[in-house]
Amino acid sequence: MENKTFGKVLKQLREEMELSQEQFGFRAGLHRTYVSQLERGIKSPSLQTLHKISRALRIKTSELIARIEDT
Amino acid sequence: MENKTFGKVLKQLREEMELSQEQFGFRAGLHRTYVSQLERGIKSPSLQTLHKISRALRIKTSELIARIEDT
Repeated sequence: MENKTFGKVLKQLREEMELSQEQFGFRAGLHRTYVSQLERGIKSPSLQTLHKISRALRIKTSELIARIEDT
Repeated sequence: MENKTFGKVLKQLREEMELSQEQFGFRAGLHRTYVSQLERGIKSPSLQTLHKISRALRIKTSELIARIEDT
């Protein structure tokens, strides 16, 4: 599981919600620049960050991970 | 999802495999002291670490996360 795959999935899900990186960051409690780094695969999110992101996407963390595994 | 819950699940799965923290760490490519910190909930694992751990446990990362969600 590559960080780049995670970033790609995050970007796709965020765009499906029609949210900018800034809007998504605000909702998830993460800084816009950190969201950008995650989407580019530069950073590896911690379990706590994965939890914040999946909550903002309104899916379970296991579903988010499954989506990455299936990509 | 708390780090303490993750640590509890990790410890349980490791013990089911009858591996010491050192043996498990060797298999996962993580230092024994880091395994100990994860099990005590002191550290929040990154997505890359979650991947290493699930590979060592021979389960999918999404299954590992689902197990934490169900605990």
